[in-house]
Amino acid sequence: MLSKDKIFLALLIFIPISIAARFLHWGEIVIFITSALAILPLAAWMGTATEEIAVVLGPSLGGLLNATFGNATELIIGLVALNAGLINVVKASLTGSIIGNLLLVMGLSMLLGGLRYKEQEFQPIVARVNASSMNLAVIAMLLPTMVNYTSQGISESTMQTLSSAVAIVLIIVYGLTLLFSMRTHTYLYDAGVADMEPEELETLADSNLADEESGGKVNLPLWIGILLACTLMVAVESELLVDSLEVATESLGLTALFTGVIIVPIVGNAAEHATAVTVAMKNKMDLSVSVAVGSSLQIALFVAPVLVLAGFILGQPMDLDFNPFELVAVAVAVLIANSISSDGRSNWLEGTLLLAAYIVLGIAFYFHPVIEGIG
Amino acid sequence: MLSKDKIFLALLIFIPISIAARFLHWGEIVIFITSALAILPLAAWMGTATEEIAVVLGPSLGGLLNATFGNATELIIGLVALNAGLINVVKASLTGSIIGNLLLVMGLSMLLGGLRYKEQEFQPIVARVNASSMNLAVIAMLLPTMVNYTSQGISESTMQTLSSAVAIVLIIVYGLTLLFSMRTHTYLYDAGVADMEPEELETLADSNLADEESGGKVNLPLWIGILLACTLMVAVESELLVDSLEVATESLGLTALFTGVIIVPIVGNAAEHATAVTVAMKNKMDLSVSVAVGSSLQIALFVAPVLVLAGFILGQPMDLDFNPFELVAVAVAVLIANSISSDGRSNWLEGTLLLAAYIVLGIAFYFHPVIEGIG
Amino acid sequence: MLSKDKIFLALLIFIPISIAARFLHWGEIVIFITSALAILPLAAWMGTATEEIAVVLGPSLGGLLNATFGNATELIIGLVALNAGLINVVKASLTGSIIGNLLLVMGLSMLLGGLRYKEQEFQPIVARVNASSMNLAVIAMLLPTMVNYTSQGISESTMQTLSSAVAIVLIIVYGLTLLFSMRTHTYLYDAGVADMEPEELETLADSNLADEESGGKVNLPLWIGILLACTLMVAVESELLVDSLEVATESLGLTALFTGVIIVPIVGNAAEHATAVTVAMKNKMDLSVSVAVGSSLQIALFVAPVLVLAGFILGQPMDLDFNPFELVAVAVAVLIANSISSDGRSNWLEGTLLLAAYIVLGIAFYFHPVIEGIG
Repeated sequence: MLSKDKIFLALLIFIPISIAARFLHWGEIVIFITSALAILPLAAWMGTATEEIAVVLGPSLGGLLNATFGNATELIIGLVALNAGLINVVKASLTGSIIGNLLLVMGLSMLLGGLRYKEQEFQPIVARVNASSMNLAVIAMLLPTMVNYTSQGISESTMQTLSSAVAIVLIIVYGLTLLFSMRTHTYLYDAGVADMEPEELETLADSNLADEESGGKVNLPLWIGILLACTLMVAVESELLVDSLEVATESLGLTALFTGVIIVPIVGNAAEHATAVTVAMKNKMDLSVSVAVGSSLQIALFVAPVLVLAGFILGQPMDLDFNPFELVAVAVAVLIANSISSDGRSNWLEGTLLLAAYIVLGIAFYFHPVIEGIG
Repeated sequence: MLSKDKIFLALLIFIPISIAARFLHWGEIVIFITSALAILPLAAWMGTATEEIAVVLGPSLGGLLNATFGNATELIIGLVALNAGLINVVKASLTGSIIGNLLLVMGLSMLLGGLRYKEQEFQPIVARVNASSMNLAVIAMLLPTMVNYTSQGISESTMQTLSSAVAIVLIIVYGLTLLFSMRTHTYLYDAGVADMEPEELETLADSNLADEESGGKVNLPLWIGILLACTLMVAVESELLVDSLEVATESLGLTALFTGVIIVPIVGNAAEHATAVTVAMKNKMDLSVSVAVGSSLQIALFVAPVLVLAGFILGQPMDLDFNPFELVAVAVAVLIANSISSDGRSNWLEGTLLLAAYIVLGIAFYFHPVIEGIG
Repeated sequence: MLSKDKIFLALLIFIPISIAARFLHWGEIVIFITSALAILPLAAWMGTATEEIAVVLGPSLGGLLNATFGNATELIIGLVALNAGLINVVKASLTGSIIGNLLLVMGLSMLLGGLRYKEQEFQPIVARVNASSMNLAVIAMLLPTMVNYTSQGISESTMQTLSSAVAIVLIIVYGLTLLFSMRTHTYLYDAGVADMEPEELETLADSNLADEESGGKVNLPLWIGILLACTLMVAVESELLVDSLEVATESLGLTALFTGVIIVPIVGNAAEHATAVTVAMKNKMDLSVSVAVGSSLQIALFVAPVLVLAGFILGQPMDLDFNPFELVAVAVAVLIANSISSDGRSNWLEGTLLLAAYIVLGIAFYFHPVIEGIG
């Protein structure tokens, strides 16, 4: 665990560096890379602070906090990019987050876990409930694209009305999913935790960057302060990232689609990556899989609809009309992730298959010609 | 049970009202709504009469009768609309029936059943055999659309030849499915019924509107008379429904696609809806799921091919070339229904997910711009 | 078993007949049919020789030999057709082999096995690992088509770069799959074989045409000679087949797409067909399913990428840009095969459903209008 914590601490140095890069005009590529590196530790600390505060608030309120702030980094980057008018990047980063969580995060977890343990097990029941929610979420999110693609094309205003209607349904479903997991059917989700040894639960807490605090009582004001500070700094750094994004990626020869689908989500999801892989290597596949799947679920059921409604408020024409190849890629990711996770077992080959799918999709996105402008 | 019977009795009043509406020129919207309401009790009584006669005929002939008359209402409405040249409405009502049964009927059953029981179980084996048949049926039904969509377009006569060939394969598969369930592998399907208490079987009979008859012996001539009378009246009312459909829905601002996919199937499947929901609330999920899935299966394997061949005879260019978005919607419905029913358990959230999928698809169909004319 | 051996022996007569047909100018249709018939016994003998040599080489080297030569017939026909510039036929025969193995071979096995045994079982674990590899393989193989189809179209050189990159990933995954099944997780695959009685293992050997050899020690030089001779003769006959293919199929009124997807794979896979059906009728569904699925897997993970890279060397513009309907057909085949094999049980109806899917796809391919030229 030490190494991960130390890496995150070391990465904090990129906060001042990225700000310096901006004011001293070191070039867009430097700003882009340093702000991306600066976001990583901030996202990790936001995660820890959220967890710590959630413990004090108790299961219900705490669960709600987790559910709202769980993907705060993606949400903040998304809002900043939306405000800057980079709508295609925002959309691409939504599909990219789903693909990245299901293929890259889950794949790395299963591969690295599988290299250490011959076979790893996790609860298929939760995997199955999540798979059904995931199917619905992804299908709903992608339906407006299909309406557009299977017709002669629909007007921009119809697309926005349709997207908003779908967004509202998705947020309601998200609320009901929380009600299900935190109120009416808690026992389904508890089973895995109940089986854990006390030592394992501690590991779980450790894995979220918690250090001396996890033994004694939680210092609530401190963590609230950390959460607010990190949230603020992520916003600041997101501005740097978003402002430098267009010029930086273009000069690297990358399309807006590739940047949105591959680069941005890796920055936004780095904390989940670290957690999922770390716990997988401790043979806690239950937790690892639920971090990966839960995060995708939150993107589709909460972050995406919130950004659609925010676009409405910000006066940006944000809708759910994706590039058809994004639709294909998400469908592919969900299909393969379902097929691999449905039996509640994993091994290194399954991890490799997920990673191979991610690599092949990455190659395809790299070569995909984008017609629309970056915004 | 009483309330459902009473509602159906009360609805019989719409038979004279709808006829009066026609001859007294009360407007197309009134005719449309009253004839739709008049069809509901007729469909329910047809279902009961079919069940009662089937009991007398014994498992084999009775099963055949059930398999043929089970979706008689849809078939009659379809034939009347086909004869009137409303081919796109007929096609849309086929996909709409499949979507409605898998999402609306199964979703309402799982939601209302799940509000009363924390977890409900049903036989996964039958669910799986049905899922495979369903996959094949739906794929075969949608292949001609895919041939058209993936090529530069094929001629109308080739499309009809292709559709007829597919229709013949589907009818043969339907026959083999009956042979499997009623002759060679009856035990797979019996298991669920064998587990039932006598009292439960009675409930099952009750749920199909059977009243005093179920105790004593069946009055065969009476039920045959009822079946014939209801069949005749459904045809009559279908004429009223179909004749008023174009003007009524247009003046309500609905497209032919939306009317065919959402409105018509709700009228045609109301009896199945009532049965499936009623038995789900009595914790008979086995029966509830098989009503919903079985009904979709019958649409794809029997009603659709019969209508294609009938179009050939009636000289109407009926084929299996659907709107591509119908194809997407059916694929989505089958995928979600499979994913939710494959584990043999259900709860209120799974019901909600199915309903949410139905609502989202409904919204999408509402906004889908239709290019083709209504016929 | 005798009958199968005798048929293959009798078919050897078509080797001289096909050569005579060529030199005596008996017409392209005669050459096409006789060379196709001549390939059948050669493919069967190549299979037997490979098995026999593999036994001597031991599990690792032998497994590798099997993995490389298992689809040698398809590979040779593919290389000859590629060299002749029949690129669309080569591509179509790749998708056709996958469809044929999953639907025709598995369907016939389940149907004929199911007519003799009420229910047949096979190991769902291996089926599931294979299904995941299959999903990945097929998706990766079809991604370039999707990139092309979802964009305004990409240049031929980009398509070839993309296809080569995907091909390299696929070959690496193939290597890792072999490592998994032959080194790190052998026990998963052994289970089925370990359960067999000695008598059954003998049957298994018999089923591969092995006769007097299986009792004593293997005559290695003889089998290497047979393997080389058969490989050479398959190439010779493939030339006859490929040279006569265009004229013969056109004069039979068949498109290049139909020929490639339906006719060529039946010739190339006849040996697998015979083996899978034979062992299914002996109630060895484990072996039967793994022949069918394993063969499709080899096509997607090994034969297809090798042909792409060979096209690069031969200067033929071979890529992975398929007809979109081939993509639909493969997706359909994988979906239905997964849905039917996932429970580890089969019966005659499931076999029939697979065959019906194959027939419906065959009808659709027959009517599919092809725009591109044959090469």
